[in-house]
Amino acid sequence: MTITRHLPSKVLSDIVEHDGRIYLAGQVADNLDQDVRGQTKEILATIDRLLASVGSDKSHILSANIWLADIRTRSEMNEAWIEWADPAHLPARATVEAKLGDPRMLVEIMLVAAKK
Amino acid sequence: MTITRHLPSKVLSDIVEHDGRIYLAGQVADNLDQDVRGQTKEILATIDRLLASVGSDKSHILSANIWLADIRTRSEMNEAWIEWADPAHLPARATVEAKLGDPRMLVEIMLVAAKK
Amino acid sequence: MTITRHLPSKVLSDIVEHDGRIYLAGQVADNLDQDVRGQTKEILATIDRLLASVGSDKSHILSANIWLADIRTRSEMNEAWIEWADPAHLPARATVEAKLGDPRMLVEIMLVAAKK
Repeated sequence: MTITRHLPSKVLSDIVEHDGRIYLAGQVADNLDQDVRGQTKEILATIDRLLASVGSDKSHILSANIWLADIRTRSEMNEAWIEWADPAHLPARATVEAKLGDPRMLVEIMLVAAKK
Repeated sequence: MTITRHLPSKVLSDIVEHDGRIYLAGQVADNLDQDVRGQTKEILATIDRLLASVGSDKSHILSANIWLADIRTRSEMNEAWIEWADPAHLPARATVEAKLGDPRMLVEIMLVAAKK
Repeated sequence: MTITRHLPSKVLSDIVEHDGRIYLAGQVADNLDQDVRGQTKEILATIDRLLASVGSDKSHILSANIWLADIRTRSEMNEAWIEWADPAHLPARATVEAKLGDPRMLVEIMLVAAKK
């Protein structure tokens, strides 16, 4: 069973494909001057691009982990999520609080999707 | 490969089935007046019901993530877990501390199981 | 589809094999007198041993979750990770802060790998 890895940094691959699944690394915003809603919007656009690059899309997401620097911003994150998500194809999901790699990072999203 | 989604809320599906796996969303207790042992017991009963609804059970859990609002309550959580778990079929597991969606939520459990 | 479980404790199995995947439980160091770099090194050696015991290796890791007791130690953890990792076969990965099971635990790593 082949493993295909894309977009490597020094420590991780942003995309790993194996046996009909796509594993994305934890995604954060590039523009950290945005509030949690803006950062979430940017991350979800990145996820769309990453999934498209391997022939999948948001309707194929199986499971997602979301970390918020402040759990009290969950409704702002969810506003951006609901605008973006396909309501007929919602993934399993868990959202908890965690300090992230940079104090200005307010949200991070990691997921597993199916290939089309 | 079909993806089947069950029990959607506005933001997630409680159960996602794909290629022989079952992905459950992070489960929390409904009755948040309970201590961590009581909340864990309620969550594990919910997991039993969710897995049964798609023809699986706790002996088929592959991997579990547990978040505790206070990591010092790990032994109380584990007491409820050990009473419930099938000792011959224990999943891989990691337990860390995280603030959860409501300050009264003391424990949250997310898992991946195999279909029977 | 068979599920094979190895190295059970009272609450979890350190390794679960199912359908070409290997799920490892969250690994922590045994020697907790080490700094984050030393603990990471020990954990990565444990992961090598666990994967080898089921006929896999680090070049087959699909996805990893890393928790740090202090996110500001990320570069020390990454130093040990980069020394160890196979740069041509890097997994998807997310690293966030969380309090772990013992206050002296500075890092915990959980992962999913493919069988060879």
